[in-house]
Amino acid sequence: MGAARFLAGLVRVVDPATVTAIVNVGDDTVLHGLHISPDLDTVTYTLAGAINPETGWGLRDESWQAMTLLEQYGGPAWFRLGDRDLGTHLFRTGRLRDGAPLSRVTAEIARAWGLELTVLPATDDALRTMVTVAGEGEIGFQDYFVGRQHSVAVTALRFEGASGARPAPGVLDALRDADVVVIAPSNPLVSIAPVLAVPGVRDALRAVRARTVAVSPIVAGAALKGPADRMLRELGHEPSVVGVARLYVDVASALVVDEADAAHAPAVEDAGMTCIVTPTVMSTPDIAADLARTTIGAPAR
Amino acid sequence: MGAARFLAGLVRVVDPATVTAIVNVGDDTVLHGLHISPDLDTVTYTLAGAINPETGWGLRDESWQAMTLLEQYGGPAWFRLGDRDLGTHLFRTGRLRDGAPLSRVTAEIARAWGLELTVLPATDDALRTMVTVAGEGEIGFQDYFVGRQHSVAVTALRFEGASGARPAPGVLDALRDADVVVIAPSNPLVSIAPVLAVPGVRDALRAVRARTVAVSPIVAGAALKGPADRMLRELGHEPSVVGVARLYVDVASALVVDEADAAHAPAVEDAGMTCIVTPTVMSTPDIAADLARTTIGAPAR
Repeated sequence: MGAARFLAGLVRVVDPATVTAIVNVGDDTVLHGLHISPDLDTVTYTLAGAINPETGWGLRDESWQAMTLLEQYGGPAWFRLGDRDLGTHLFRTGRLRDGAPLSRVTAEIARAWGLELTVLPATDDALRTMVTVAGEGEIGFQDYFVGRQHSVAVTALRFEGASGARPAPGVLDALRDADVVVIAPSNPLVSIAPVLAVPGVRDALRAVRARTVAVSPIVAGAALKGPADRMLRELGHEPSVVGVARLYVDVASALVVDEADAAHAPAVEDAGMTCIVTPTVMSTPDIAADLARTTIGAPAR
Repeated sequence: MGAARFLAGLVRVVDPATVTAIVNVGDDTVLHGLHISPDLDTVTYTLAGAINPETGWGLRDESWQAMTLLEQYGGPAWFRLGDRDLGTHLFRTGRLRDGAPLSRVTAEIARAWGLELTVLPATDDALRTMVTVAGEGEIGFQDYFVGRQHSVAVTALRFEGASGARPAPGVLDALRDADVVVIAPSNPLVSIAPVLAVPGVRDALRAVRARTVAVSPIVAGAALKGPADRMLRELGHEPSVVGVARLYVDVASALVVDEADAAHAPAVEDAGMTCIVTPTVMSTPDIAADLARTTIGAPAR
């Protein structure tokens, strides 16, 4: 996940205690009665150095005993939950059932992993990304993303519960008080948009537009991972850094694009954003750190 | 668990396909959002030969990765859920959330383990054994049994939801049609009573009292395992085979007691039950099989 890698780079170049990560919960789901927060976990596990490096999700050194028995029962095992990972879901679900808000539980989990940065869900309220799939109707995000392996055409997106959701405690303060706000290189439509859909967040970003920088998840017309390029096209956006610029121009003043997209810089500027060209493919921690340094320096340019 | 061991002996001496186990759900609980059915699982795992022989609960060859992480979070890990065992709880919880009744899910789990007997929860409805503990008030059964390791004084028991519960499909038919009904050597107050508390079950047993045989869980004034003796005393019953006879006399015509209690046989008969004396301590599968054979032969005597 681009956002998690970016954050891992960022905490190498600034004091982690000054960093707040505001994370999408639109792909949260309930499976087998357990509350799963895939994006929060990926951020936490990545920053803890505990992420499974092969998959980019879940924990390293994982075992799969629970899934094996679930499969023997004929249960739905398409969403893989490792045994260690289940510890996170059990804890989160139990705490939520006790009445703790997701933001508090997220902080407890981050603390247990020794993280110094603040990890916040965009909202403590239920907000669910619903995906309308051609020929099938509306399904939950994980049904689309994992169940169909995002290989089906998307005709619409909806953020169920968004209109009644409130930003989690700390979200608006973090946006208001930050020296720099970064929109991480994630899918604009299903990773960033659900955050912006929480009432108050988009306005808060607009108020700090001058110091908000986005990093394009699209490089040379393609997403490095996941369906962002395809989804942009299917939903009528240009699958390019220019298309990304048009999506973010009201909330961010600068867009960081990869060197492969240097030729598009003028078009990004025409769309209304300062364009910064630098390597954005975070194939090593050093590149991620360099990208983070360049990104947070952008508003000063 | 005495009932599970007894059943394991029983299926060695009769065709398992003719056996229906009606199992207590009063100690079911929800932990971390998962529906746990300890007695159903102990019966199923035992008959599948998969029970952990050291503990008498949970699965053999178990790992504890989920619990380890849960503990690192400071989560409640007093109720141990092994990784494999979690597969059962995930499946059950998911199926119940899909709307499947517990009896159907139980059958699916039993089938996956290759069991030939029928395993039925006493009811598909929520029935919860609540324990009033001296100086503490009323707590859930697992809080008492596992959380306090049944080391506190009990002043009252209540079966929450019992009055509105219905026998699971097949329960009353099994009791009516059986050649022999056995009340297994389990705690009369918290393993058997919650089954009898389901409206219709006690009457169904009374109707077949002549062919119903109970096996005493009390041997020489003590429970082999668990708090049955102490609990009988605390709740005003005699912690002996005679006390057990008085509890069962309206629903069973015979009581099987251990040789250690041979001297109490006349008192059991005086209490209104035929008394059968035989080894009841199921320290080997052969003894369990012999006990089962003697027990099911009792009504013919």
